[in-house]
Amino acid sequence: MADRVLVPWDQNLENAPAGVSGDVYDGEGEPAADLSQVAFYVVPYGRTQRLDLMERMPGLRVVQLLTAGYERALDPLPEGVELCNGRGLHDASTAEHALALMLAAQRDLPRWAGDQAAHRWAPHFTRSLAGTRVLILGYGSIGAALAARLEPNECEVVPVARSGRPDQGVHGIDALHRLLPQASVVVLTAPHTPETQGLIGADELALMPDDSLVVNVGRGPLLDTSALLAEKGRVRAALDVTDPEPLPADHPLWEAPGTYITPHVAGGSDTFYPRARRFVDEQLRRWAAGEPLANVVRSGA
Amino acid sequence: MADRVLVPWDQNLENAPAGVSGDVYDGEGEPAADLSQVAFYVVPYGRTQRLDLMERMPGLRVVQLLTAGYERALDPLPEGVELCNGRGLHDASTAEHALALMLAAQRDLPRWAGDQAAHRWAPHFTRSLAGTRVLILGYGSIGAALAARLEPNECEVVPVARSGRPDQGVHGIDALHRLLPQASVVVLTAPHTPETQGLIGADELALMPDDSLVVNVGRGPLLDTSALLAEKGRVRAALDVTDPEPLPADHPLWEAPGTYITPHVAGGSDTFYPRARRFVDEQLRRWAAGEPLANVVRSGA
Repeated sequence: MADRVLVPWDQNLENAPAGVSGDVYDGEGEPAADLSQVAFYVVPYGRTQRLDLMERMPGLRVVQLLTAGYERALDPLPEGVELCNGRGLHDASTAEHALALMLAAQRDLPRWAGDQAAHRWAPHFTRSLAGTRVLILGYGSIGAALAARLEPNECEVVPVARSGRPDQGVHGIDALHRLLPQASVVVLTAPHTPETQGLIGADELALMPDDSLVVNVGRGPLLDTSALLAEKGRVRAALDVTDPEPLPADHPLWEAPGTYITPHVAGGSDTFYPRARRFVDEQLRRWAAGEPLANVVRSGA
Repeated sequence: MADRVLVPWDQNLENAPAGVSGDVYDGEGEPAADLSQVAFYVVPYGRTQRLDLMERMPGLRVVQLLTAGYERALDPLPEGVELCNGRGLHDASTAEHALALMLAAQRDLPRWAGDQAAHRWAPHFTRSLAGTRVLILGYGSIGAALAARLEPNECEVVPVARSGRPDQGVHGIDALHRLLPQASVVVLTAPHTPETQGLIGADELALMPDDSLVVNVGRGPLLDTSALLAEKGRVRAALDVTDPEPLPADHPLWEAPGTYITPHVAGGSDTFYPRARRFVDEQLRRWAAGEPLANVVRSGA
């Protein structure tokens, strides 16, 4: 009977419910397991190319991804196989990085790093995060995790989502142009869809105050790169994602005034692993108990 | 009657209680006011050298500083003049900078700044702040403000003070050696006293785990510089204060592995100003009402 699991971590086998057994495959080299017996396959993190193993798993019933994105899995997914994604596993890491970018930009951390390299002790007064009004565009789980981190930092958080939820203080996107002139910081956490493409373009940047800051931890195309460059530093930027991405070595964004760039690393930090391991444990428990799985993005039925 | 005030901001005069009048002096150039009439002098921020004006103020009764440190004011302070300091005005700014340093060190921000300068897009997985255990050494108002910021960042905060307060979960300093081996991050926020000199030295660093982080936003001498250098990056460091300070251009600490330095700027950010203005407003109100002033460090009686 093909009901073995293929999981990335030893812990998942150790914690597996009674009746569930299988093998560990962390994405390095070729799996030692008998793939013909695998019913539940957790694709190792950062090894999306190992979706190719699915074609050697005739008994496959569930594929579990550890990323939120799942577009690449849909095409090769065999008929009747259930697909689950890793939505939520990166929230804390991404919110934490967004906070880091905001603090870096407000407290001049890139400047101090350059001064350190030059052995230069040259203190000056900086902006602060405290006392700023922060628009969070795309108020899902990452936005909420960021808001929780901003609260004790004495920020005024203004959440904006596609559809407003007035009872929860969440503005609709139609309020954006009205809200931008009063924002010190605008954080983009939305996914990339046709509606969010160029969400912050020339018109929106023009509405932002002098010396305000746009932070992008969503997807590069949410922010119009040419429009940002045209601002010449009047609006500052802290970007974990860019358009294009990766940013070519000769792109002018690298040297844009008031712009700080990290290479799409918001979701990739140590806090991901314990969460991901626990999540796989829970999915296996649900599976063994015949309960519906979490994060189903394509049903197997 | 000499009962005029000399204050740094227009707002202080606009908000002054009935009967209180005076002039503004922001520390630039020479004051235009008639100093012989000044009874309440707020020394402009960052202009401690203008304590020299006191000798031209025969009617002086109160000197208000905007810094926590007041040692330099004691000697020139005339007999019978009350001295107040700026304790607390820098707490939010300092706690915010401590958080920025922790995030910078955990999320490799100085590295990304260097990569940006080199136009290099080279992502890698980083440490996180979430999931760390953070010892805060010196648990006064800055420590508490930091703890509030760490809570939603999913840190386990372990406060340590000179005298333990077990009912509030604050450990005494005698527990330090027992706590260090389980700490991912140690933050120094204590003042510099004979007791705190070298608080973290070779013995303490040796007790800290590999790849742990020491953050100093207190005073440089709390951390033994030579002992830190001897660790050669086994314990990482993020330092806003150093010993010596300012750090000479040829000092080896600039290039110490795993060490990030900012030039004593934790307290100096925009969040200070609104707080300081409000505080001066409140002091003038107390003074006019005949109430005891806040933050008295030497009585005028």
